[in-house]
Amino acid sequence: MNFNEEYQKRLDIVEAVLREYLPEQTGRQKLIMEAMEYSLMAGGKRIRPMLMRESYQLFGGNGRIIEPFMAAIEMIHTYSLVHDDLPAMDNDEYRRGRKTTHVVYGEDIGILAGDALLNYAFETACTAFDMDPSRIRPVSRALQILAKKAGIYGMIGGQTVDVKESGNRISGETLNFIYRLKTSALIESSVMIGAVLAGASDKEVSLMEEIAGRVGLAFQIQDDILDVTGTKEKLGKPVRSDEKNEKTTYVTWRGLEASREEASRLTEEAIGALKSLGREDRFLVELLRWLVYREK
Amino acid sequence: MNFNEEYQKRLDIVEAVLREYLPEQTGRQKLIMEAMEYSLMAGGKRIRPMLMRESYQLFGGNGRIIEPFMAAIEMIHTYSLVHDDLPAMDNDEYRRGRKTTHVVYGEDIGILAGDALLNYAFETACTAFDMDPSRIRPVSRALQILAKKAGIYGMIGGQTVDVKESGNRISGETLNFIYRLKTSALIESSVMIGAVLAGASDKEVSLMEEIAGRVGLAFQIQDDILDVTGTKEKLGKPVRSDEKNEKTTYVTWRGLEASREEASRLTEEAIGALKSLGREDRFLVELLRWLVYREK
Repeated sequence: MNFNEEYQKRLDIVEAVLREYLPEQTGRQKLIMEAMEYSLMAGGKRIRPMLMRESYQLFGGNGRIIEPFMAAIEMIHTYSLVHDDLPAMDNDEYRRGRKTTHVVYGEDIGILAGDALLNYAFETACTAFDMDPSRIRPVSRALQILAKKAGIYGMIGGQTVDVKESGNRISGETLNFIYRLKTSALIESSVMIGAVLAGASDKEVSLMEEIAGRVGLAFQIQDDILDVTGTKEKLGKPVRSDEKNEKTTYVTWRGLEASREEASRLTEEAIGALKSLGREDRFLVELLRWLVYREK
Repeated sequence: MNFNEEYQKRLDIVEAVLREYLPEQTGRQKLIMEAMEYSLMAGGKRIRPMLMRESYQLFGGNGRIIEPFMAAIEMIHTYSLVHDDLPAMDNDEYRRGRKTTHVVYGEDIGILAGDALLNYAFETACTAFDMDPSRIRPVSRALQILAKKAGIYGMIGGQTVDVKESGNRISGETLNFIYRLKTSALIESSVMIGAVLAGASDKEVSLMEEIAGRVGLAFQIQDDILDVTGTKEKLGKPVRSDEKNEKTTYVTWRGLEASREEASRLTEEAIGALKSLGREDRFLVELLRWLVYREK
């Protein structure tokens, strides 16, 4: 298997789905649709919708009902970045080598574009109810997972603690809490939704959640590592920003070598659990490895 | 019927529902739950959940499945106020006589509290799926209405044009567009959701939407009137802010007298349409009149 080729194939599919589910740019409120597209179509690894689709296929899913949820999860991830970048939050002017949304459209439209993406994520996911009336129950379950993992018991909860502790030295326990909610929660929801929509059992859905918890943490640790070892050119964003902001990270807490070992250990555990399902998906295994050995 | 007494009775019910559906303040992310409660429990007329419940009862609904949606609509209305008040938007320090959320909790938590309320609105509404498995279809329809009317084709769309045109003299047509989306859309969704969950027909749901469109516009015109004729003490917010901000309003566009006539005409049309349903709800009729003849 040529991983890069297979990854690119899937990335093209995800990008096409995102484009299809973006609202048409029309009406007096066209500006907000433009800002949504600018924010959403800025590139990125698209790992959440990609993992969602892999999980869906892993459990035998082969319809299009996964697509509105693929779009929804990336809209939620994107809105969180748009609001994160605001002057009152991280005050970032660049992301992925492009100007951030509020820099291009103004701070007011930046706030509204984030709101719009979050709301439109649910609006989009709700279109799945009309796609297959016989699957209304798994769709409702998928919506519940999406809402919970994105909210105060998931991403927003982690974000709150992150903001509150900003500038403070924090314990490893707190750091793990932030990463588990801020980063892992959306990745957990991705694979859980894929499994639910494909008709997996509750036990299988729980196992996928555990796997994704490890993957999310490993992914975030690798982000901390790259902030120290990467270059601005490769990452498309400033490096050593954690050091500059005196941020506690896995690297400042445990050191570079131990962080690498931890990320690697978590990934291999996740792969082991995945294999215990007895379902074959060589690409997914390689994807999990790539997420933690990536250089950007 | 003593309107004030009947109104107070219903207000107490709404407040109890809101309190019940707020998240427990617990965990490391407790701060965001506090900010959500501070924002949501700040008083207000609660007309959206109240209209939703009246509409539900008008069509014979008598269960508790309406409650998560009552909480959800008020959470969405509240988040829109929290984000509206931010320095990058209207920069308001007081609302209903209390400090605004970002003034109390900081701008970063203000942004996150708004996000949290929007997300939690959907999380809360989704709990209705578990309340009565036989009503999963109307619940899914209600969710679709909620998402659409709160989003770019509803409230956020109106907000976008309002922000974009801020400081410009705008046409009456544009003003109507803004009010229809920014104010009417959520009121439309309130009565539509009530009707849908009570099992009303599509035709009845459409009629309720039309009625609420007129009510929302009349309500907003009355807001414009009160900004000119009201006092800070009664309204709990600064008056003549529209004049100060050189904002086009119904009053600057049509004058005070014509605005009053228009609001009154819209309300009587709405009441006429309501009566055409052949269903009795004296309180609802009085409520619609109160909304446009209110002094605060």
